[in-house]
Amino acid sequence: MNSCLEQSRGSRICLVVAYDGTDFHGFARQSGLRTVQGVLEDHLTKMLNCDLTVEGSGRTDKGVHARAQVVHWDQPYGPPAENYVYVLRRYLPADVIPLRATEVDSAFHARFSVRRKTYRYRIDRSFLQSVFDYRFAWHLHTDLDIAKMRKASRYLVGEHDFTSFCAASAPQENKVRRISRIDISESGAMLVVDVEGTGFLQYMVRIIVGTLVDVAIGRLSEDTIPAILRAKSRPSAGQTAPPHGLCLWRVEYPAHYVHCTLDLDEYM
Amino acid sequence: MNSCLEQSRGSRICLVVAYDGTDFHGFARQSGLRTVQGVLEDHLTKMLNCDLTVEGSGRTDKGVHARAQVVHWDQPYGPPAENYVYVLRRYLPADVIPLRATEVDSAFHARFSVRRKTYRYRIDRSFLQSVFDYRFAWHLHTDLDIAKMRKASRYLVGEHDFTSFCAASAPQENKVRRISRIDISESGAMLVVDVEGTGFLQYMVRIIVGTLVDVAIGRLSEDTIPAILRAKSRPSAGQTAPPHGLCLWRVEYPAHYVHCTLDLDEYM
Repeated sequence: MNSCLEQSRGSRICLVVAYDGTDFHGFARQSGLRTVQGVLEDHLTKMLNCDLTVEGSGRTDKGVHARAQVVHWDQPYGPPAENYVYVLRRYLPADVIPLRATEVDSAFHARFSVRRKTYRYRIDRSFLQSVFDYRFAWHLHTDLDIAKMRKASRYLVGEHDFTSFCAASAPQENKVRRISRIDISESGAMLVVDVEGTGFLQYMVRIIVGTLVDVAIGRLSEDTIPAILRAKSRPSAGQTAPPHGLCLWRVEYPAHYVHCTLDLDEYM
Repeated sequence: MNSCLEQSRGSRICLVVAYDGTDFHGFARQSGLRTVQGVLEDHLTKMLNCDLTVEGSGRTDKGVHARAQVVHWDQPYGPPAENYVYVLRRYLPADVIPLRATEVDSAFHARFSVRRKTYRYRIDRSFLQSVFDYRFAWHLHTDLDIAKMRKASRYLVGEHDFTSFCAASAPQENKVRRISRIDISESGAMLVVDVEGTGFLQYMVRIIVGTLVDVAIGRLSEDTIPAILRAKSRPSAGQTAPPHGLCLWRVEYPAHYVHCTLDLDEYM
């Protein structure tokens, strides 16, 4: 089984990987369910014929996509990093797309080394849903007041306790997070919401987007956001946007791990 | 089961429907396989509690998508046409998207009334494959000589015997078809080939696109196209492009059935 692999010293491999979250129960391995971590670990284990653990930059929920998730694993031997993408393409199912593999030093950790992450949420406002986007955008044919959305979003930028904007069951005790940027842009009928921050709580981006949509349709006033933050209670915020519009867009690391971040913008 | 349906006279319903062909064994019903026609017939039969046949404007191969396929069926009773899209959205799986339903007179036939059809083939030339396009575009990261492709395509426009450009097993005896237009356009890394004609043979658009790609990479000369047409033999043409890049884009009918054609361009 190992005949195709060049023997080498043990190493830590960092892989940038895209996935279509539709048919996954999220990133994190769960017994008996199809997950991205599970698929990666199972294929690498079979390929290398040794047990290993794949660490991701963070979890994504069931149904959420990734354009450039970052993972790493340690291996006693295996193909040189530069051959990994080619080799993995033959092993992985079509909805997991390996993009770039590099060897990293053992101080790098896909999760603990993260400096910043960007999520993109896409809302398709067209009257008729496009077959090319039905998996990757929330179809919402309704008038949205973008100016109000933008005003509401400005209250969320900065360091806040996001208890109102995460799942009531979120396990973390400290709900303070820092959002560095929320950009709302339009490209034809597509409305794109980019949320950038140092860390995110469970459902946080989806509740932010759902609340911004509630503001945009007049269900909530844009000026209630500060009160919602102060309330520290999930029911005070708006709806949770559906998972399929959300995509983990970009994961950034300190400058000396710049090769672990993939700038795909020129290819999109 | 019929409680939600308004009783009315028998009628012929024309439905414009999009589908993601990835998980279908093509349009045409096949015993034991998941097909678009099968899914539509099964759901309509269950919904209306009566047997019916769904006729399409034509077949699409396994893995080929449709942005706006047109179908019709006759029903003894059922919801008014204008309610159908709403009702069907609740019944159909996510990869079949009903777009517009209208009542048509019994002279209309989804297949026999077709005046013109357009197929769109998308080639993603980016270095790194996008998760948003992996289902809907042929990923081909290579230099393509677009000028040569365009020159080759001009030989194919018009009325020709397309024996060389269809499956050797294509059932039709007469292989003469008329192509009215082949447009090759670029949008970023995406190369779009539109092929418009009155009728198409099995694999015809995919063999045309595969042959144009063979010209674009220098495997075939653009000026061999007339000889390939004259050869009337499948092996003389180029490769068959994979199905997932192909999409049935538009089906046109005579002017008095204009409502059966959906111009989605403004929504895309």
